[in-house]
Amino acid sequence: MDEPGTIYFTGTAGAGKTSLVTAFRSWLTTAGYSATVVNLDPGSESTTLQPDIDIREWVRLADVMQEYDLGPNGAQIAAADLVALKVFEVKQALSELRSDYVLVDTPGQIELFAFRESSKAILEALSGDRSLVAFLFDPTLAKSPSGFVSLLMLSATVEFRFRLPTYNLLTKVDLLTPAQVEEILSWGENPGALVDAVERDMPTPDAQLSSGVFRAIESMAPLMTLLPTSSQDLSGLEPLYRHAQQVFQGGEDLEPSHAPPDEG
Amino acid sequence: MDEPGTIYFTGTAGAGKTSLVTAFRSWLTTAGYSATVVNLDPGSESTTLQPDIDIREWVRLADVMQEYDLGPNGAQIAAADLVALKVFEVKQALSELRSDYVLVDTPGQIELFAFRESSKAILEALSGDRSLVAFLFDPTLAKSPSGFVSLLMLSATVEFRFRLPTYNLLTKVDLLTPAQVEEILSWGENPGALVDAVERDMPTPDAQLSSGVFRAIESMAPLMTLLPTSSQDLSGLEPLYRHAQQVFQGGEDLEPSHAPPDEG
Repeated sequence: MDEPGTIYFTGTAGAGKTSLVTAFRSWLTTAGYSATVVNLDPGSESTTLQPDIDIREWVRLADVMQEYDLGPNGAQIAAADLVALKVFEVKQALSELRSDYVLVDTPGQIELFAFRESSKAILEALSGDRSLVAFLFDPTLAKSPSGFVSLLMLSATVEFRFRLPTYNLLTKVDLLTPAQVEEILSWGENPGALVDAVERDMPTPDAQLSSGVFRAIESMAPLMTLLPTSSQDLSGLEPLYRHAQQVFQGGEDLEPSHAPPDEG
Repeated sequence: MDEPGTIYFTGTAGAGKTSLVTAFRSWLTTAGYSATVVNLDPGSESTTLQPDIDIREWVRLADVMQEYDLGPNGAQIAAADLVALKVFEVKQALSELRSDYVLVDTPGQIELFAFRESSKAILEALSGDRSLVAFLFDPTLAKSPSGFVSLLMLSATVEFRFRLPTYNLLTKVDLLTPAQVEEILSWGENPGALVDAVERDMPTPDAQLSSGVFRAIESMAPLMTLLPTSSQDLSGLEPLYRHAQQVFQGGEDLEPSHAPPDEG
């Protein structure tokens, strides 16, 4: 049996990580694949996720606040580092639950994941050759040109930092109009359209800043792909599966003992 | 009397925002200028800051957790948005405390400041023509080449998002060796040196990703300046003052009724 394919779901707080993990698990299961869900957020407040492996068994934000007499800010930082110390326990638990896919829900605040040395250690310990980061674009931020650029730069930073293939997903498209979705996707496909939108949106253009950021956008354009998804109507989950397979196996489906997912 | 010069101190959690605000206030006061300190972090756990205006008078993270029955993650997001609703109270309090400088301590997690629509509204309401963002580089992250690039991209994102002059400060240089400080500063001055350092540090080079990020680094190079500072030995505070003056007034010192700061 192949090593499982691991997908880390990350994005700014409120982008819909937990909902997408839950929806994608149920899509995979329906399609005949086995999936293990790992929660790496010691402060997770979700009651719907029901992870198979839960970092809160070892590190729980509320306990860290109490034990170290810290407020929520300080406790989140301490907890992020304590999680790194438990990574081998997580790895051990994973090795006992062999499945086709591992879906990892990362901490609510992306900063605790993307900008701390401890998370690099966590990813290095957990990731094999078949790993992928799904970077979620929150539509409330992505629908404005400057918010879109911010997310694009954050996604590029995450990709650069973790050196794992990174796939951008626009979440909650059910909350957007079709015209809004189309506009956002056009920014992802065409850096020129994005630059135009940013300029239209800019009250006081700053030539030096703009030209630097615009050239940065153009440099990153080859990395830009954006897949529209919804955890409500499950749109985008089949393309997410296809893309993950492509990354993990060069495009082949899993072995035929598994039912192929519906094309619908 | 001129409108006060406003400096927003931002950076990843633990970068030393609150310590630097405290140190810079005391530097300004010693130099004969008046400074108002504003705390915009509803979850601030600092006992040393003693702000003149404190968002916690209106929004307090612990109260939001209790009142809305939220955990720390959810409460931080809710609190960030509640802060935006109190911005006119802050503005009113500021107008009653006219001073030469306003130093704003922003939320511990930079994400709550940099990637939420509410903080754009806050900055637009509070900032006049004389405003500056001080973006703090945490030395634990800045001392590795990939961490440095991450911070550079985050700083560019913040500048792009808020469209305010942004000045990068390396904090806690007292915790680094002189050789480490010199190396970090060389990356800020010379994109080529940074690219070399990143390549040396990279176990598995990814040509497409690297060339995209490297071209982005080079595009952003004109925006790169990095001032070494320490809240312990107060180094860098006089250059920070000079730079702020340059931005606020085109390089002129404040009116001569104020004692000029020591050059030492």
